[in-house]
Amino acid sequence: MDALHTDLYQLTMAAGYFHRGMTSRVATCELFVRRLPRHRRFLVAMGLDRVVRYLEGLRFTDEQIAYLGAIPALADAMTPAFADYLRGFRFHGDVWAVPEGTVVFPNEPLLRVTAPLIEAQLIETFALSAINHATAVASKAARVVLAAGDAGVMEFGTRRTHPEAALDAARAAYAVGCVGTSNVEAGMRFGIPVLGTAAHMWTMAHPTEEAAFEGYVAVFPSAATLLIDTYDTLVGAARAAAIARDRLKGVRLDSGDLGALSVAVRKILDDAGCASAKIVASGDLNEHRIAELRRAGAPIDLYGVGTDLVTSIDAPSLGGVYKLVEIGGG
Amino acid sequence: MDALHTDLYQLTMAAGYFHRGMTSRVATCELFVRRLPRHRRFLVAMGLDRVVRYLEGLRFTDEQIAYLGAIPALADAMTPAFADYLRGFRFHGDVWAVPEGTVVFPNEPLLRVTAPLIEAQLIETFALSAINHATAVASKAARVVLAAGDAGVMEFGTRRTHPEAALDAARAAYAVGCVGTSNVEAGMRFGIPVLGTAAHMWTMAHPTEEAAFEGYVAVFPSAATLLIDTYDTLVGAARAAAIARDRLKGVRLDSGDLGALSVAVRKILDDAGCASAKIVASGDLNEHRIAELRRAGAPIDLYGVGTDLVTSIDAPSLGGVYKLVEIGGG
Repeated sequence: MDALHTDLYQLTMAAGYFHRGMTSRVATCELFVRRLPRHRRFLVAMGLDRVVRYLEGLRFTDEQIAYLGAIPALADAMTPAFADYLRGFRFHGDVWAVPEGTVVFPNEPLLRVTAPLIEAQLIETFALSAINHATAVASKAARVVLAAGDAGVMEFGTRRTHPEAALDAARAAYAVGCVGTSNVEAGMRFGIPVLGTAAHMWTMAHPTEEAAFEGYVAVFPSAATLLIDTYDTLVGAARAAAIARDRLKGVRLDSGDLGALSVAVRKILDDAGCASAKIVASGDLNEHRIAELRRAGAPIDLYGVGTDLVTSIDAPSLGGVYKLVEIGGG
Repeated sequence: MDALHTDLYQLTMAAGYFHRGMTSRVATCELFVRRLPRHRRFLVAMGLDRVVRYLEGLRFTDEQIAYLGAIPALADAMTPAFADYLRGFRFHGDVWAVPEGTVVFPNEPLLRVTAPLIEAQLIETFALSAINHATAVASKAARVVLAAGDAGVMEFGTRRTHPEAALDAARAAYAVGCVGTSNVEAGMRFGIPVLGTAAHMWTMAHPTEEAAFEGYVAVFPSAATLLIDTYDTLVGAARAAAIARDRLKGVRLDSGDLGALSVAVRKILDDAGCASAKIVASGDLNEHRIAELRRAGAPIDLYGVGTDLVTSIDAPSLGGVYKLVEIGGG
């Protein structure tokens, strides 16, 4: 079903090779990155799984072929013979790749394809799209995970990226060491642990914070991680401890000076007998901010990272290229 | 089928409202952007269409409900009664929104939802994801289109973004005035003109550039836009004119000094009797680069813009929020 997820010129070139009798030539293409983006000293290869599923399922439906015939730039070449070729299209090439999660450097091939020229050409756009996106996110997520050290990183970025891109971002983040994602579909599809706490809207929908916490603990007696920054974080911490007591699994800070607040909240929780309750921090975090918090000794157990991770914000696109490196006769 | 494309906490909150007897309360939420991103003086609202399709199709399958029961953080609340609620779930709310393509400013609602609290909460993540992404891309694309003035802008960015995000990026770009996209699936799905030229691989797969051009014109006699920068752009221009003659629809420059080259190429084409052939330019373009080229009088008819447009590279995420603004009793 992904056959048309490509640039038009891959199809015009394919039609050209077909009509010029060049279909039996064998081409080898490599996908690599020429230069590291700014702020990156390495990349983590990701996206192969999506490319393999694409190659295995690559088929053109009759409806798609009819649509191609209606594109002016392709019309000249959409003969019955080429339509038949597309109808029977299967990818027959060999694919070599570094395993997902491999650290790679400039000019190192992430993927090598040896296939009939027409097939090697047709798959270029999708391969670049899937690998550029997933590798960019994995490379950013790896930096965040390294900065967090012993603390866990949870991927919280769905709302800041496209709904489908969010799934592959969650997968990439987990592959490089995040402990889980907030994205439920990613959890179901890829077997990633799904994590979360309470929401500000929950607190605001109740007459008081106390009522909100009491209600939450009543519904989730064994999994109460309370969001304590809706009104006053320190008051919220004391209230969470008083209400949930030894069932308090954790608290989340989502605003303010996370370093100072986490120290104060830790003391409140410990003094109230909630020593096992975890502190989760979120809010505009990235590897630099997390490193600062850790250098300052902030007692944060888990970091929720969204925007900067899923958009790879300081290097939002990866310049991977797919180049013909060898072509046989025929 | 998009029901699980959400953050876990929307489902834990929904379960909480259900078990606390708060399902009949009516909530109004608004989606807006608090501050413009750097480098933006306005936003163009986009993504409503995707949100409406999501709301209309929002259903939980038995398989999804079974999966939710297996998530530790949700397990306490996944009673048979709540599973039944999810099985019968439909979105009943009212949605008000600015039309797609509307110019919006900080704190102006793009979307307002009035619905039972539980429904208003559940849809937050998907609405933010779809609208943040599409609005960011549309806002960037509008800048590129404005910079190009009378020249056309073609969206060429599929390989630089996630395969599915590419479709909505193409749609957003077309909605704000791009003349088309290279993405074939976007063309089929949204009725967008699909555009393209030849590829470098086509030229490299032939023994000479001459053979490549001859072959291309033979296959596409009525739609020959040739890529002339594989070896030497000026030689390529003369060769394209000599081979395609009055059938030359256009040439594409993808590297080098696009300003100087376009002037020289225009003269070569005009002198060879190809006055109607268009010049297409591509390669790391954005609104600033296009404005420079136009100020310098570059005779470029069409700009192909990829990376910077589809990733909204200087503002890669939009901070839209979705906030409870009113809640009724019940």
